[in-house]
Amino acid sequence: MPPDGAMTGSRAFRGEHKAKPLKFDPGKLKGLSERLIRSHWENNYGGAIKALNAIERRLAAMLPEKDLPPYVYGDLKREELPCGPGPVILHEHYFDSLGGEGRANGPALRLLTDWFGGDEVWQAEFTKMANGLAGGSGWVILAYNLHTGELHNYWAWDHMHNVPMGRPLLVLDMYEHSYHLDYGAAAAKYVEAFMENVDWDGVNRRVEGALGARLA
Amino acid sequence: MPPDGAMTGSRAFRGEHKAKPLKFDPGKLKGLSERLIRSHWENNYGGAIKALNAIERRLAAMLPEKDLPPYVYGDLKREELPCGPGPVILHEHYFDSLGGEGRANGPALRLLTDWFGGDEVWQAEFTKMANGLAGGSGWVILAYNLHTGELHNYWAWDHMHNVPMGRPLLVLDMYEHSYHLDYGAAAAKYVEAFMENVDWDGVNRRVEGALGARLA
Amino acid sequence: MPPDGAMTGSRAFRGEHKAKPLKFDPGKLKGLSERLIRSHWENNYGGAIKALNAIERRLAAMLPEKDLPPYVYGDLKREELPCGPGPVILHEHYFDSLGGEGRANGPALRLLTDWFGGDEVWQAEFTKMANGLAGGSGWVILAYNLHTGELHNYWAWDHMHNVPMGRPLLVLDMYEHSYHLDYGAAAAKYVEAFMENVDWDGVNRRVEGALGARLA
Amino acid sequence: MPPDGAMTGSRAFRGEHKAKPLKFDPGKLKGLSERLIRSHWENNYGGAIKALNAIERRLAAMLPEKDLPPYVYGDLKREELPCGPGPVILHEHYFDSLGGEGRANGPALRLLTDWFGGDEVWQAEFTKMANGLAGGSGWVILAYNLHTGELHNYWAWDHMHNVPMGRPLLVLDMYEHSYHLDYGAAAAKYVEAFMENVDWDGVNRRVEGALGARLA
Repeated sequence: MPPDGAMTGSRAFRGEHKAKPLKFDPGKLKGLSERLIRSHWENNYGGAIKALNAIERRLAAMLPEKDLPPYVYGDLKREELPCGPGPVILHEHYFDSLGGEGRANGPALRLLTDWFGGDEVWQAEFTKMANGLAGGSGWVILAYNLHTGELHNYWAWDHMHNVPMGRPLLVLDMYEHSYHLDYGAAAAKYVEAFMENVDWDGVNRRVEGALGARLA
Repeated sequence: MPPDGAMTGSRAFRGEHKAKPLKFDPGKLKGLSERLIRSHWENNYGGAIKALNAIERRLAAMLPEKDLPPYVYGDLKREELPCGPGPVILHEHYFDSLGGEGRANGPALRLLTDWFGGDEVWQAEFTKMANGLAGGSGWVILAYNLHTGELHNYWAWDHMHNVPMGRPLLVLDMYEHSYHLDYGAAAAKYVEAFMENVDWDGVNRRVEGALGARLA
Repeated sequence: MPPDGAMTGSRAFRGEHKAKPLKFDPGKLKGLSERLIRSHWENNYGGAIKALNAIERRLAAMLPEKDLPPYVYGDLKREELPCGPGPVILHEHYFDSLGGEGRANGPALRLLTDWFGGDEVWQAEFTKMANGLAGGSGWVILAYNLHTGELHNYWAWDHMHNVPMGRPLLVLDMYEHSYHLDYGAAAAKYVEAFMENVDWDGVNRRVEGALGARLA
Repeated sequence: MPPDGAMTGSRAFRGEHKAKPLKFDPGKLKGLSERLIRSHWENNYGGAIKALNAIERRLAAMLPEKDLPPYVYGDLKREELPCGPGPVILHEHYFDSLGGEGRANGPALRLLTDWFGGDEVWQAEFTKMANGLAGGSGWVILAYNLHTGELHNYWAWDHMHNVPMGRPLLVLDMYEHSYHLDYGAAAAKYVEAFMENVDWDGVNRRVEGALGARLA
């Protein structure tokens, strides 16, 4: 790894991110094995943390290069997104979405009803989108948009596909590493298992924070 | 356009978005012509609003179709993102970034210094990224991340490429419709002109809102 | 599925593609289980065939719609690519790449030596690219370019990322469905197993066809 | 630019591509100005040639680095595709598609009729796809697929989106640099102008080559 030269003082390129621990017992989910969850957390989330740190340090080394064509620097900036904050933040929301009882209630249920006319309509779209990503890769993200004040299910084909100003409330990982060890290609069963483990208390906390946010 | 059937009651699919007016006089920017700005606002931002409305209504019609394969519904959800909230929200931030004097100050300058060691280093990366997108399409987005508490320049190849939980503070449109009428392929001159028109008062308001946000 | 109306006569939209059988015994590969290969062939390759047929028929129904906004039609055309010919053709090349002894020889070895200075340098890049896709999705494609006459390893993040005029000679699937059932997150072991099963006789046939092609 | 070290002997990384001249007089197209065509050829096609050369040399320098994480190498391989052979080859086909009289005839017309039931149906889809890309970026590609023996209009959002085994017969550039100088946001007029300048003699030569190709 190159020394970070002139950028030493820049926190933006320091490359010192660390993985957050799971807040639930991975041996106690319904229909999702401890082996699957641990592999997902260690290899995929953990790998994203490592990649983000490596890329930030490379950027620090490249930024001062006078003769570097901008598109070469841009290549690595592009990669910073999918290798880095994208999967790190989405995985943290995914794991935070698990560990609960799986029944919408409270402010989340009110918001879903307000925007979709009920949680069945919302869930019909959410799971249809998830099944549409089966066999490929991507995320389904229920998000409150802090700019428009709207609630939508957003579709993401990879870690980079996000709506600007979205505040993810519930995040479902559809990369195959999320289910193949337990379910093989039977993605629909994984989607059902995920829904049964949703921690709606956490969703409710995120809803309250989002509705209360004042962003000029 | 199909009738929206069973989804009539769902605000999420209503398709009634409207364009926001420019907050500055498009005839008074430095180095960016009124013709360019008006064409950009009407055709590209305005077109995105129209597309978003059309797609929401199609989704409303398709969601109840029992035999619809999930990947076909997913196609349109994918398209909802780049055709819709992506360009709408990014264009609104882009136009909100213009109309000022172009010198960083106040809380924005403090934040840039804190994360990049000074606004020159920040601007070196921001403009390098912009020039790396010359001749193609995309956005450069200075954003405060509400999840990680970090400040970064984020790279976006198209309207869908955004960091989750990013709060855009300053947004530069590098689609060729942003400059070709005035500058042809000379994108670097456009980037310079943009920097001279940045409304840092607006950036400062967004910085203060972002730093004060409490999202559980 | 909608009737195909005015397009009935168009072969381009007929939606009658069929899966090709495996040309090798899936129970006899080294280090890749029959269960994995059968699931991959049936669910992922087979699913792509089904999706392609469904989308062609939808396009046939939509093309005559007078009031359809072009970007809505374009959405489905976009999807035709990744759901359809992309994964169908790449999977057919992937399965055709397997079933052999795994040692480059003959015209393929000569071509690799000519362009990379030896098959070790070529393989170093090919496997480095594969490992770079671990935990995500994509393809690594050794292709002869019929336009430029060059030989390169091409990188594909999804089914749509292909070089124009490339003639794939050897195709490695890095979607997680290619290895998770056997190897979990240990993608590097899968890459090794793939290399040991490469059918270089088939690669040699494709090399000879490519070198002999005359495309005006 | 780094020295290319151990890779000196590898043609695959030599970085010595050169631009091909226009085969028609850019001052004599109908409805497309010489200034537009020259800017497109010099800045966008020429820029892609330069970028491809720079990236090949960087790859040559990086490949031998023992400690380089594979995803960092993969980043640059990804970029090799859109910065390099993608736009180079597509631009060469685009310019080769121009300079003619704009009326389909001969083997191309027969092929269009065979697959679409007539050139009006084909053109209806081709131009609908083009207009769907207005205000954004991408390509519309009429291609004969050398693997499936099918003829389709393929959609490409950027330089990387191509069907495997496609042989482009007619290529329309919808990046805004293709028309903004002449038409501003009025993309539909540009699409019409393009159609009036298609060199169908060249298309016919490519059709004959494609139909005669034998790829094992």
